[in-house]
Amino acid sequence: MLDNIHIDDIIIRALKEDMALGDITTDNLIDPESKSTAYLVAKEPGIIAGIQVAERVFTLLDDKVGFLARVEDGQHVEKGEIIAQISGHTSVLLKGERTALNFLQRMSGIATLTNAFCKKVEGTKAVIVDTRKTTPGLRILEKYAVRAGGGRNHRFSLSDGVLIKDNHINACGGIRQAVEKARASVPHTVRIEVEVETLEQVQEALDCGADIIMLDNMDIDTMAKAVKVINGRAIVEASGSVSLETARSIAEAGVDVISVGRITHSAPALDISMKFQ
Amino acid sequence: MLDNIHIDDIIIRALKEDMALGDITTDNLIDPESKSTAYLVAKEPGIIAGIQVAERVFTLLDDKVGFLARVEDGQHVEKGEIIAQISGHTSVLLKGERTALNFLQRMSGIATLTNAFCKKVEGTKAVIVDTRKTTPGLRILEKYAVRAGGGRNHRFSLSDGVLIKDNHINACGGIRQAVEKARASVPHTVRIEVEVETLEQVQEALDCGADIIMLDNMDIDTMAKAVKVINGRAIVEASGSVSLETARSIAEAGVDVISVGRITHSAPALDISMKFQ
Amino acid sequence: MLDNIHIDDIIIRALKEDMALGDITTDNLIDPESKSTAYLVAKEPGIIAGIQVAERVFTLLDDKVGFLARVEDGQHVEKGEIIAQISGHTSVLLKGERTALNFLQRMSGIATLTNAFCKKVEGTKAVIVDTRKTTPGLRILEKYAVRAGGGRNHRFSLSDGVLIKDNHINACGGIRQAVEKARASVPHTVRIEVEVETLEQVQEALDCGADIIMLDNMDIDTMAKAVKVINGRAIVEASGSVSLETARSIAEAGVDVISVGRITHSAPALDISMKFQ
Amino acid sequence: MLDNIHIDDIIIRALKEDMALGDITTDNLIDPESKSTAYLVAKEPGIIAGIQVAERVFTLLDDKVGFLARVEDGQHVEKGEIIAQISGHTSVLLKGERTALNFLQRMSGIATLTNAFCKKVEGTKAVIVDTRKTTPGLRILEKYAVRAGGGRNHRFSLSDGVLIKDNHINACGGIRQAVEKARASVPHTVRIEVEVETLEQVQEALDCGADIIMLDNMDIDTMAKAVKVINGRAIVEASGSVSLETARSIAEAGVDVISVGRITHSAPALDISMKFQ
Amino acid sequence: MLDNIHIDDIIIRALKEDMALGDITTDNLIDPESKSTAYLVAKEPGIIAGIQVAERVFTLLDDKVGFLARVEDGQHVEKGEIIAQISGHTSVLLKGERTALNFLQRMSGIATLTNAFCKKVEGTKAVIVDTRKTTPGLRILEKYAVRAGGGRNHRFSLSDGVLIKDNHINACGGIRQAVEKARASVPHTVRIEVEVETLEQVQEALDCGADIIMLDNMDIDTMAKAVKVINGRAIVEASGSVSLETARSIAEAGVDVISVGRITHSAPALDISMKFQ
Amino acid sequence: MLDNIHIDDIIIRALKEDMALGDITTDNLIDPESKSTAYLVAKEPGIIAGIQVAERVFTLLDDKVGFLARVEDGQHVEKGEIIAQISGHTSVLLKGERTALNFLQRMSGIATLTNAFCKKVEGTKAVIVDTRKTTPGLRILEKYAVRAGGGRNHRFSLSDGVLIKDNHINACGGIRQAVEKARASVPHTVRIEVEVETLEQVQEALDCGADIIMLDNMDIDTMAKAVKVINGRAIVEASGSVSLETARSIAEAGVDVISVGRITHSAPALDISMKFQ
Repeated sequence: MLDNIHIDDIIIRALKEDMALGDITTDNLIDPESKSTAYLVAKEPGIIAGIQVAERVFTLLDDKVGFLARVEDGQHVEKGEIIAQISGHTSVLLKGERTALNFLQRMSGIATLTNAFCKKVEGTKAVIVDTRKTTPGLRILEKYAVRAGGGRNHRFSLSDGVLIKDNHINACGGIRQAVEKARASVPHTVRIEVEVETLEQVQEALDCGADIIMLDNMDIDTMAKAVKVINGRAIVEASGSVSLETARSIAEAGVDVISVGRITHSAPALDISMKFQ
Repeated sequence: MLDNIHIDDIIIRALKEDMALGDITTDNLIDPESKSTAYLVAKEPGIIAGIQVAERVFTLLDDKVGFLARVEDGQHVEKGEIIAQISGHTSVLLKGERTALNFLQRMSGIATLTNAFCKKVEGTKAVIVDTRKTTPGLRILEKYAVRAGGGRNHRFSLSDGVLIKDNHINACGGIRQAVEKARASVPHTVRIEVEVETLEQVQEALDCGADIIMLDNMDIDTMAKAVKVINGRAIVEASGSVSLETARSIAEAGVDVISVGRITHSAPALDISMKFQ
Repeated sequence: MLDNIHIDDIIIRALKEDMALGDITTDNLIDPESKSTAYLVAKEPGIIAGIQVAERVFTLLDDKVGFLARVEDGQHVEKGEIIAQISGHTSVLLKGERTALNFLQRMSGIATLTNAFCKKVEGTKAVIVDTRKTTPGLRILEKYAVRAGGGRNHRFSLSDGVLIKDNHINACGGIRQAVEKARASVPHTVRIEVEVETLEQVQEALDCGADIIMLDNMDIDTMAKAVKVINGRAIVEASGSVSLETARSIAEAGVDVISVGRITHSAPALDISMKFQ
Repeated sequence: MLDNIHIDDIIIRALKEDMALGDITTDNLIDPESKSTAYLVAKEPGIIAGIQVAERVFTLLDDKVGFLARVEDGQHVEKGEIIAQISGHTSVLLKGERTALNFLQRMSGIATLTNAFCKKVEGTKAVIVDTRKTTPGLRILEKYAVRAGGGRNHRFSLSDGVLIKDNHINACGGIRQAVEKARASVPHTVRIEVEVETLEQVQEALDCGADIIMLDNMDIDTMAKAVKVINGRAIVEASGSVSLETARSIAEAGVDVISVGRITHSAPALDISMKFQ
Repeated sequence: MLDNIHIDDIIIRALKEDMALGDITTDNLIDPESKSTAYLVAKEPGIIAGIQVAERVFTLLDDKVGFLARVEDGQHVEKGEIIAQISGHTSVLLKGERTALNFLQRMSGIATLTNAFCKKVEGTKAVIVDTRKTTPGLRILEKYAVRAGGGRNHRFSLSDGVLIKDNHINACGGIRQAVEKARASVPHTVRIEVEVETLEQVQEALDCGADIIMLDNMDIDTMAKAVKVINGRAIVEASGSVSLETARSIAEAGVDVISVGRITHSAPALDISMKFQ
Repeated sequence: MLDNIHIDDIIIRALKEDMALGDITTDNLIDPESKSTAYLVAKEPGIIAGIQVAERVFTLLDDKVGFLARVEDGQHVEKGEIIAQISGHTSVLLKGERTALNFLQRMSGIATLTNAFCKKVEGTKAVIVDTRKTTPGLRILEKYAVRAGGGRNHRFSLSDGVLIKDNHINACGGIRQAVEKARASVPHTVRIEVEVETLEQVQEALDCGADIIMLDNMDIDTMAKAVKVINGRAIVEASGSVSLETARSIAEAGVDVISVGRITHSAPALDISMKFQ
């Protein structure tokens, strides 16, 4: 669930971006009293995410708009399937159309691609998670869409997760020093994650009690060895240019978590349109 | 050129989104006095856009960061090519890295895909333009990226262009009535565009003096006939699910403008990383 | 019609400006349960604009306020005529009074002055349009008021209209070069306007196909000659210190559009007060 | 003096209002490296106010702009007099021009009209003060302009001054009750002002120790009698449709303060333009 | 009474601060349809302030939450007493709980401490007032809490009261010069207050007609002498590290007003919790 | 370290709150060219936090102010010790004084109280952490002050830590169900914390693998038993009305973490003043 306090600002900003001075076509051509009914229709199959956002676009414009969702976020739709029915002033429907679609198409695109990755790893223990490679300003929506698609979230931001990378390791003089420094200072509610590239580093991270070990851009064989070495003593995360082609073999190497940048930074929009009755 | 008054808000919001409470890894592990140099490096070939935004991410964090661009927006880079060199406090570089890349990768992705479309229509008179199908909140950046990629911009928002669609036509009782109503009320600085689906509608739009006629989802043959009918008396725009496969034949049908939603809503991010020296 | 997403921010800011800490007179002297009815009354004749804004001032303070408009925006009122009836908590009526009037008086002042200009040119083909000489932060309201007064809008901002002035011409090396450069780069939805001061420049602008030619501070005779030269091949706009005294003769010179700065920057407020029953 | 923390928001909002997407003329026609010098020139005589705001418009766009004021706020200028010299990137000068002028012309218009009122009452003890009838969102600038014109400020908002009007009096059951209630509750740093319409009310307000007595819409004779009755025991303020014609006689009736709504709500802009070298 | 236009921003900011990305515990563990009733309960005796703010926290999250206050602001509660009953979605109650309590506990803490000071001076003519030593961003709430506790407000900010301190006196060349300069320039609605440290300064301030004389950090005897000297010709304010131990004797020295920083800057929170049925 | 992107908004808001219209005393009495030097001086011993915030208050008003810190955040100062030296325009120093002190006193008050708690548990393994009971809008500053005082941070918000309370447990049908549901859905980077009140619940939480067990309001004996039962298999946190009197015995019961609400919600301000040379 998304709270309105989080999405209202984002939506209002989008609406203003799309009509700084009103809609000069609609304001001049449409009778303000005219009412219509329209439908959000999937033009290709996929997983829907963002229905609440689409609804809120219209109700922030006019709280008398009626919005009836026919599907729920996370649900698969077929081409031609109606996602929601919207009734209200024609002018409001026309003004909100593009903004509502821009949100819904992007979020559904992310949910759909995430779901494709999840399908690939089905039956393994691996879960698909997102990264911080999200669209600036829309992270909360995109992380939500990932969940709707069946994925899980990685840390939300630099504030709520520790990920020790090579720069941090170098700065501290070694993995052990970095992990210990982190453990001594960050909230006890947070797990310590270390990014490693070799089996030696895996061992080092393990020895100093890292909670999560991220295998960065490792080949499948090394990954499998790392999983064996770690043997359940830390959560194992695979990362680095994961694609639909490589996801399954990574999962089968035995990792717990696969983080995939492209589910947010490169998901094509799901084709959805708004049809007036 | 982008003015800071437009981008600062967007960047600050992105930075806060990525570190509501600071960077708990870097704040605890990196000596605040430590300095580094890093490089933005292309990991695949493409067209760069957003260098100024990337730079501003760092200088808004700390105005003493040095940023040296090695290429300009709109320029093609090869895999491995350095885009910019950044020097300053290690902590600042680490904090800004992801946000800067998120902007730069998205904008460069859009420029690269736009450019691919432009290449396809080279030698014809058709120009590639964007749509309002942009990421909510980032339209100014994405319209800029389209220009960097060699495309042109369609109207920015509902406030600055008239596009008469079937709902407007129905509400007014015909194309002529709609066009005349628009002409009588909108700013004289704006051209009147009408969306049509048949040759009859093309004729109607032409007869009442529409400035731009948008051929919506027409097949190539009908398009070519429409171009012939219009014969230079209006600007001809082709629209509707244009792909890299179809762009050339649409252009060869003789249209002036091809508007392409996917250059903004479905462009994959260009792979760029930040390497520390 | 104005959308609430545009005006709410402006109104909230105005209300906070007028009571950073509340209303120390009303909060201390008026029983919070007390209710009243009051009337917005014209104290001089004029054209009303901004009723929706006045209403929104009260309903943003308290959504239980009843507001009954007796006239519509754009309508002429006589001295003493009731514009609207407002009922609700006395404290809310007192707190919103000044802010509502400040908006309504300013907007009605603009509508009234605009209307006086429109009356002057009645029977000619000239239309009165506004400029960018509006009150910072209130442009959307003032452009609306101009329309309520019977005028039309010029471009809203630097982003949605091209106006080539002497600086641009000099920078490009001539009118033709400037017009061609603009045509090759700005959205195809926008007309190209050129500001000229002499008949030679008129010819130049015409030759390169400018869509709108603005005659800047020309005397009536030259203007008439320019109109003749242009002969319908471009829209003709007259500009420069237009007054109620000069408007008619300018219109009779045959121009299409007269832009008037003073309808926004120097319109005296219409005298309106709020009377409690 | 105005602090930047107060004016920056107002200016940024104005600049964005005037170029949501940049300046499509200048961005496309002017070489970004080109530099110019321009002058702010008075096109009619008046009192200048807002130089710091005009300067800040340009320096917020580009902190490398040079701005040399030739006059100070509050100073009289003749027609043709140079107010300031501005040097910097041509594009920045063109983008800031209208916004800077919009502020400067409005503020100078207010200063000029205020000054005309001050001149009228010269030699009497009356001072001219403003009201809360200011442009929504610009009160701080307009109150400043009033001071630049030689006037003084009345209370800034409902939060920082007590003005007991008939509604408050009726609600409390009489002037005495209202004044006593106010005295018992508002900050001791604030004077209590009562609005009266008759000599009986003057006496009542005086009897209960009102600090300021506002004579609302009284004729000159009654005003003079009121002044005599009050006899220095309270500050006497005259209010209500004061014009340049009536100001002197009101002042000569012996009042201490004359509050004038029109110096802010109906001051015509002072004609100022920006000339490029 | 607090107006929503003042508190909504403060509350929204607090809610976002407490759940940038939602509530990961509640969102994952609580059925979104589940409903509950909960009670705000005092865990120690005190004076309540901020009920409207607590209510608004929940209704801004979900306007269908029911909130029934059992006491009013300014009222004393005993340990275990129910302050309000709240019913609605369990998830909303859980999400708003901490933020509502943070406001209510702080405001009630201030009201309680203020009330303790008021009790100390009961029977004297002295009133307890606050200072500008409030929590940044919450001044309006804290000044309100002071009133709820039986105190009065000093000036709200630097904009609405004149307090001449030694720096101002030195800069002007003496108390008389400073007072006269202030009187000639600040709004006539504002009283002039001077801060003094010796009886000589008291006399000086009195001689030039200061409206309020603040005795800064004087011992009780000197204060009593100052009160005698002033003898009702100015309001006498005592200031400087006033504690519950010293308040009574200061009041008995005959001052009119005692300003106390610690009622806002050092009031411990009142212990209040939220119990689910 | 605090980043300016986090604190600038908070400071600007505070400054505007304290001078909506400027400083009517200083603006009228102090020569704008006058310069001064002043010192921030501790008036009682304590731990300093917030120097960077105090500095930023002045530099946001005027970036030419010189600020020389004599101590660092986290350092102990004695009564009379100089914390920082500030030089610049007298008017800027006077305008920023109260706001800078309000931040510095509050933050130093928190650091000082936190440090007192830390001292109490010295020699045990227990660390003192904060809670979400912070001042609305200032959490980032208060969490920072806790660290400056030697404490550690608990989760920042509902978004970045899981704390399963009785409501969650009831809703899920037991501790095991709640923990498993959380583990299956929240980011893998976050530890799962369960709040328990009895030894039975301790065992339950332990059995299902809770990462952190919070002993809520347990007596010391039960706590010690809980620690024994847990025996290092989970982090043990003690919570509930911890005071300076009880902290030591809680620590000696063997817990890992003691969370203390009062270090943020009830810390008295540290007495600091600003003295002009």
